[in-house]
Formats: sequence, structure tokens, C-alpha cells
Amino acid sequence: METFYSDSFVLLFIVCLISFTTPCDGGNILVFPVDGSHWVNMKILLEELHARGHNITVIRASTSWYIAEKSPLYTSITIAIPIDEGFEDFFDVYLQENMRGASALTFLKITKDFLSMLSEAHLMWSQALVKTFDDENMIKSLMDSQYDFVLTDPALAPGILLAKYLKLPLVLNVRWITSGEGHFAIAPSPLSYIPVPGSGLTDKMNFMQRIKNMFFYSIILLQQKFMLGPSYDALCDKYIEGGCEIISLLQEADIWLFRSDFVFDFPRPTMPNVVYIGGFQCKPARPLPADLEEFVQSAGEHGVIIMSLGTLVNALPKDVADEIASVFAKMPQKVIWRHKGERPSTLGNNTLIVDWMPQNDLLGHPQTKVFVAHGGTNGVQEAIYHGVPVLGIPLFFDQYDNLLRLQERGAGKIIELVDVNGHSFEQGLKEVLHQDSYRLNMQRLSRLHRDQPIPPMDRAIFWVEYVMRHKGAPHLRTEAYKMPWYSYYCLDVVVLLLTVATGLLLSALAFFRFLCCSRRRKTKAKQH
Amino acid sequence: METFYSDSFVLLFIVCLISFTTPCDGGNILVFPVDGSHWVNMKILLEELHARGHNITVIRASTSWYIAEKSPLYTSITIAIPIDEGFEDFFDVYLQENMRGASALTFLKITKDFLSMLSEAHLMWSQALVKTFDDENMIKSLMDSQYDFVLTDPALAPGILLAKYLKLPLVLNVRWITSGEGHFAIAPSPLSYIPVPGSGLTDKMNFMQRIKNMFFYSIILLQQKFMLGPSYDALCDKYIEGGCEIISLLQEADIWLFRSDFVFDFPRPTMPNVVYIGGFQCKPARPLPADLEEFVQSAGEHGVIIMSLGTLVNALPKDVADEIASVFAKMPQKVIWRHKGERPSTLGNNTLIVDWMPQNDLLGHPQTKVFVAHGGTNGVQEAIYHGVPVLGIPLFFDQYDNLLRLQERGAGKIIELVDVNGHSFEQGLKEVLHQDSYRLNMQRLSRLHRDQPIPPMDRAIFWVEYVMRHKGAPHLRTEAYKMPWYSYYCLDVVVLLLTVATGLLLSALAFFRFLCCSRRRKTKAKQH
Repeated sequence: METFYSDSFVLLFIVCLISFTTPCDGGNILVFPVDGSHWVNMKILLEELHARGHNITVIRASTSWYIAEKSPLYTSITIAIPIDEGFEDFFDVYLQENMRGASALTFLKITKDFLSMLSEAHLMWSQALVKTFDDENMIKSLMDSQYDFVLTDPALAPGILLAKYLKLPLVLNVRWITSGEGHFAIAPSPLSYIPVPGSGLTDKMNFMQRIKNMFFYSIILLQQKFMLGPSYDALCDKYIEGGCEIISLLQEADIWLFRSDFVFDFPRPTMPNVVYIGGFQCKPARPLPADLEEFVQSAGEHGVIIMSLGTLVNALPKDVADEIASVFAKMPQKVIWRHKGERPSTLGNNTLIVDWMPQNDLLGHPQTKVFVAHGGTNGVQEAIYHGVPVLGIPLFFDQYDNLLRLQERGAGKIIELVDVNGHSFEQGLKEVLHQDSYRLNMQRLSRLHRDQPIPPMDRAIFWVEYVMRHKGAPHLRTEAYKMPWYSYYCLDVVVLLLTVATGLLLSALAFFRFLCCSRRRKTKAKQH
Repeated sequence: METFYSDSFVLLFIVCLISFTTPCDGGNILVFPVDGSHWVNMKILLEELHARGHNITVIRASTSWYIAEKSPLYTSITIAIPIDEGFEDFFDVYLQENMRGASALTFLKITKDFLSMLSEAHLMWSQALVKTFDDENMIKSLMDSQYDFVLTDPALAPGILLAKYLKLPLVLNVRWITSGEGHFAIAPSPLSYIPVPGSGLTDKMNFMQRIKNMFFYSIILLQQKFMLGPSYDALCDKYIEGGCEIISLLQEADIWLFRSDFVFDFPRPTMPNVVYIGGFQCKPARPLPADLEEFVQSAGEHGVIIMSLGTLVNALPKDVADEIASVFAKMPQKVIWRHKGERPSTLGNNTLIVDWMPQNDLLGHPQTKVFVAHGGTNGVQEAIYHGVPVLGIPLFFDQYDNLLRLQERGAGKIIELVDVNGHSFEQGLKEVLHQDSYRLNMQRLSRLHRDQPIPPMDRAIFWVEYVMRHKGAPHLRTEAYKMPWYSYYCLDVVVLLLTVATGLLLSALAFFRFLCCSRRRKTKAKQH
């Protein structure tokens, strides 16, 4: 490939050069991550920052799922927070509902459940933050540490509130904010061509679809109004000088490291302080373990299918798993399937069931022909990076939207969970395997993704260190968010102009009427 | 400076590396430039493209001011076009009017004159293009040349029309389009904080200023409606399949190389296919000629003031020049003044009058303390690059707006031409010389400008070659411009929703009225 980025050895060399020639004294970074899969992304960035000699402090919940208290990467500060048991139950319920097919009612119920679960998480963090702010020793130690800036994932709000409280510059590692997709908070987002996540729409909508999009946007607004306000207003009033709103705090951030790009997402308006780092986690494949390599090579010219539905789902329903296994058994390919549930009774000899797979290394293996995936962002971006077409079975959240972006470019195909059966799965799999267009389109996306002036990870590091060098980046951020909404949309000007125009029109009418009447009166007077 | 970009030797090395490792077969580029100062900018880009081994063909007018027919850089194609004498007269008249002070009436007159002059230019190019399209040999030769893409400056429209006609990808080297500033054509531009060029406003506007901004925006709309349409509609209908509009053709461009950035300009929404190359022409200073170096060094610790009002003005009015010269004569600094008119009678020994000066080398000289400038984009960007504060005397066009951006950041001061006299000039000059904040703020802008992941010129080249490698960049461009305006703004949806809401409200009212009446009737019936 004739690209800058694909010539990775050159880039490595460049990065090394830059590393050596740019004396970057180790910075002092306060990180407030979000747990779960969000932490996986944050940790990759922290590893790079650590390698660059920066000193990292991570704030974690006492009940954290993934964030270890001790790590060679960082020093940790633990905040006491009650265990939240809602999430895992929710996923199971959601999956069951989803299997039964989606009616408007189940959608509303699931949305309500999800929002109230999120609401609780906000309230919990808000209370934990109040305790932190009241803990004089903790605050003194945070102040004394003289952090250069706060790095946070704004899917939850405590990081941005802490940055404001400590009066520190703020860098976001972001895709989702407290109320939906990040862009909607800072960049103009015309609803006529910017699909709201969850709506299942693309950037080309007809009239009915635009009504649907507006409906989904209203959920975002309701969320901002009725979820964020009650959770944080009291805290803002008490601890932040002049009060605060979560959305305004987001708009005040110096740099948004946005985990997306326009090979993956639809083109849309953006802002100067948004830096696209989509696929920053992608790496060239490493060699497979010997036994796996042998299995993969044994597939010969037919190649390999890999399947993984992510970490959140423990097991597919047994009947679905059986149907999938029997389709796999019929294929001439070899199959590697990350599957945790009961061993399907219909499993063929060509199918290897695993607990865990080196997904990136398999996707980068020339034998891999198709990726059967749930459509999590990381998996989709790795598939793009390696140019492997996707058969997608979306389960939760943004997964349908992610897969839709591939399907729209002809690089993937979606089967909804409710429609998965032996017939549909076999048909879908064969289509993605044998129609060349899927592979060619995905390889095109891969070429585009790799062809960047500098790789996304280096871009992320550059802008993080930029904020350290210049103590923020206020010149890249508009202050329009400080305007009242009617001024932002110039509605006050429009109302004035309409009033003046109406006034002029009425005066003109009154004047002509007066002229008419006086003429009539004169005529009458003459007649008398 | 601890920056990537300032370590120019490293970057040179990187660029060389990239040049060698990225086998970029010479592309075939068709360039349709705009004459005058626009050509100066385009030529710098062409020099770099030529050095990278690309084959360049330039289309020029037979009456071109600057674009030579023969050049080692390019092959030229000459299009017959009548001499346009309007421009130079216009500048003289404009300057005279401006000296007398600006009333609303003179503003309107000047705007009208300028627009009708521009209108004529459009008409002239439109006619020339019709001749080109009708010239079968010319078109055959253009087709046969198999250009990779068209590179044009869209301050005039023929380049974008030719690209459409030849069905080639389009790259713009742009700041001004056929109707004002480029961003207004493709990025959402809320008038509440995006000042329309010419309005003299910043990104922070009060109510009255927002009214003024809207007024200036209406001029853009009128221009699009009444100037572009009449000039090109017939041509579009006849030669372009399905017709065309200039603004849509601009919105269809693959990449916008935008000659600005957010160190210079106010932050604002942008689009994924806009690449900021502001300051791409800036270079480190070279040593001065020996005699000039001697003069500069003779200033000692007081340093040097340089003054240039650009190439368009032949001479300042004599009385103004005399006053300026007498102020210079009083200063302890040495002065280098690019001045074409009569030698001022009040000239001091410390002032060197020159016809031409190596402006970039002087701005980069450590002895240079202040730049007295008219505020042309190139000069302002060079001043930022070298960190020299500016005393600005704006003459035409965007010059006031350019200088305003420096003044807002405390890195420059504006004296309007009508206010220039000995007293104001002396005061302004001393303020910029002696108040440290001007120098410090300008040096801060310089640090920010130089601190970029890759230098603007390399960015420009990367994206030009990107368009060649991928035969366009349609994935970075929204297709929302194809929607009717009422759909783009979702007005159709809003009207529907309002209608439904009104319908429901009226039905509810009617229902309650019916209930009321029937109850009243019953009560009456009972009473009887």
C-alpha cells in the first residue's frame, strides 16, 4: 500500500525521532476513567503516555470491575462507592427482550429501564463526589499534586466536575457523553442528515425518517433536562463558583480526543478542538500461537471464519447457538468461535470453540475471510484496520449503528438477533464470503483508514502534550456555549426584525386606510 | 521552543524520509488559478508539487497580470479574455473614499461598485468558458491528458465548472469563494458568533452587532442570487448534465485547502474535508543582503521598525506620508519603509525608503520590533510566524478583519486610514513598541502556530496526493447540500408537527366545548 501510515516502520522511526527531539518533561496527569470497556480504551492511551515518561494518577471506584488498585502504569486514588448490580441484570433482560423482537412498547420499556439505571449511576457518582469535595485532606493532596490537566471519559460526569473544581485544563477521551453521542454537545448537528445514535438511521433520510430522528433527539434533550440536572445541580450550586451545567462543562473542555473518524462514521460538522483518533488502538497482527496457526493453516484455500460477540454476553440462547453451529459445520472453512455457553450439540469438526481469542492477530491473518461480530466499536475498527468484511449480529447500544456504517459502505451485512436462524445465518455468511464486493469495499475502507498524515495514536499523544505545553487550548474552543439559546440561534434578532417589519406593514396599511377614508369623506362632503 | 514544527531540521528529515519511502508516481494536475495575489499563494503550492515530481498544467488568461505563459514549473494553456481595467481604478477610488471617512452611503456605493466589477469579471469568465467548451480541439486535448484532478482557487468560478465538465475530482486552494468567505458555503455558520467578513465584528457580539452581522450576511445571499446566477445559469444549463449551481459545485469539492487556521481566525464549526493550511507559505528567515544587515545592526538595542502597505496601493496621499515620515524621524529606532510615492519632505536619517524589501527575512530578524502593515493575509501570517507585533493601517477587503484578529488577541493595534495623523500614528507606534504585552501575545501566537503535528505545507501536499491516490475523497464530504433548504433545516418536519399539534389542540377544544354546551343544554332543559 502506498501510504504514509501503512509504512509502519517509517512511522515508528518518525515517532522515535520526535520522541527524542522533543524534550517533553514528564507531565503530571490526573485521569478519571469510566469502568468496563471504556477503561480498555483509556488504558491503551495511558500505556502510551506512560511510555512517554508522564506521571499518571488514576481515580477509581472501590468497587471497580476492571481498574486495578495497583499497576506499574499509574498511582491510584480509590473513592468509596457502593456496588452497582443493575448493569449485568439489565444486559440479560435486554437480550431476552431483543430475542422476542422489538415493538415500540418494549423499546420504550428498555429505554426507560436503561435511563433509570444510568440515572442511578449518576446519582451515586454525584454523592461520591460530594464526599470527595468535603474531604479536605483529599482535596489538599489533589491540589498539592499540581496536575497539568485532567483526562477523563465523559460517559459519566465526575471527571469533568473535578477538573472544574480543581481549575485544571480538561482533555476528553470520548465517544459517548452523559447524554448520547459527543458531537451533539459541541458541533452543530442538523437533524436532517446527522442520525441520532439508536435511531438506526443513516446520513440519508426521507421525510418519515427525519421525523423519527427528531423523536430520538428529543430523548437526548429529555435526558439532559431530567437526568443530569437532578443528579448534579445541588453539587454544582454548592461546590462550583457561579454554578455549572454538565453540558457547559463539556463544551468548556480543551481537547476532545474522539474515538471515531470519517472512514468509520458519516461525514458531519465538527469543531477545531475535536481530534479524531478512531482506530488508535489498532496494531499490526503478531504471529499466532503455534497450535492456532496450525489450525488456521489447515483451512487451506477456503480460509477461516472467526466469530465473537464480545464480553458482555455470557451465552447465546441454546437454540440459536445450535443453529449457528450446524451452519458452521456445513462450511468448507475452518471456524474459530469465541463462545462461553454450553457446547452446541451440532458442532462440526471444523469449528474450534475458544474462551478467548487473539482477535487482532486473527483479523490481521491473511487466512481470515469473514468476521462474525456483535459490532462493538473496537471490533469494528479492528476489522476496518485489517480489511476483513463483517457479518454483524448487533446486541446492544451502538452496535447496530456501528454495523450499519459498514453495511452502508457495502463492507458488512447485518442480521438482527431476532432474525437469526439456520437459514438466514447460512445465507448471510455465504453472501459475505462469496460476494467479492464485501471484501473489496472493506479493503478500500482499510486503505483509507491507514492513509493518514500521522497515525491516530500519535495524534492523540500530540494533542495531550499540546495541552500540557500551552496549559490548555482555549483558542480552539468557541465560547458560543455561554450565550443564551435564543441568542445563539439569533431568535432575538429575528423577532425584532419581524416586529419591525410587521410594524411598518401595519403603519403603511393604516396610512393608506386614512388616505382612503379622508378621500371618501371628501367625496361624500362634495356630494352633499 | 519545544515544538514538533519548530525543530525544522527534524521535519525536513521526516519530509525527506516520507518523500523517499512513499513512491508517489508523478501525478497529472490541471490548475485553474486566480490572478494577482491569489496566484502568489497558488504558485508556492505548485512549486512544492513540482518538486514532488508532479506534472502541472496551468490555465491562464491571455491578459494575465502575473501568470507567465512559459515557466519551468508548468505547461500553460492560454484562454483569450479581454483586458479588465476596472480593478486598478477601483482601488484608487476606494482609497480616496476611505480617506474621507466611511459613511453608510459611501459604504453602499463602494459595495455596489465592487459587486458590479466582480459581476463583470464573472460574466467575462463565463463567456471565455463557453468558448472553451465549444472548442472541440481544446476539450479533446484536455480529456486526452487524463488529469488526476483539478486544483483551483474558487474566488472565481471557471475552475470548478471545468472540473465538473471534465468529471474530475476537485481540490480547492481557498479562502474566498465567489460570494464571500469559504466556510459559509459548506460549514454551519451560526450568525450569533461567526462574524461575516467585512462586518468588522469578532466572535463575541452584542444584540446590535448580531443585527449588523445578519445584514452583512444578507449581502452574501444577494450576491449568490443576483450575481452568480445570471453569470453562469445559461452555461450550466447548456454544458453541465442536469444543470448546476456554483455553490453546489463548491460543496461537491473533494478537499478544501483552507488558507487560514485557528491561531489566526476565531474558532468555528468546520467540516471533515477542510484542511487548514494557514501560514503554509511561511519560511524561516534567510540572511539579509550585507548592506541591509549593516543598516539593521546599526539600530543597536533600539531595533528596527519595518513598514509596508502591500502591492495594490501605489502611494499614500502626500500629507499622510509626510506625517508618518516625521513620526519615524523622531524615533530612536531605524526604519525600513517600502514606499513608492514621492519622497516625503520630512524624512529622517534613520529611515530607509525601499521599492521592495525581503519582508519574510526582515520579519524573522531578531532586530525587528514592529511591523507597520496594511493587514494582507500573507503579511499577517508571516508576522504571526515570526512573532512580530503589528501596527495595522487597513486599506481594503479583508485587511481590517485580519488585523482585528491580531488586535483581539492583544498582538496588534489598528489605526483606521481616516484617523492616521502624526499624533495617532506616533501614539500607536510607541504603544506597540513599548507595551510588552503586544510582543508577548504575538510570540504566544507564534508558538501556537508553529506547534502543529505536521507543518501546513506538508499537510497540503499530503491531501493533494491523497485525492490522487484515492481518486477523490467523497467519504469526507456530506451530501446534505443536495437536500432542498426546507428539508435541510427540517422545516417540513416542524410544519407537520406544528400542524398535528394545532389539530390536536383544536380537536380537544372542540370536544370540551361540545361537552360544556351539552351540559348547559341539559341544565337549561332541567330548569324548564
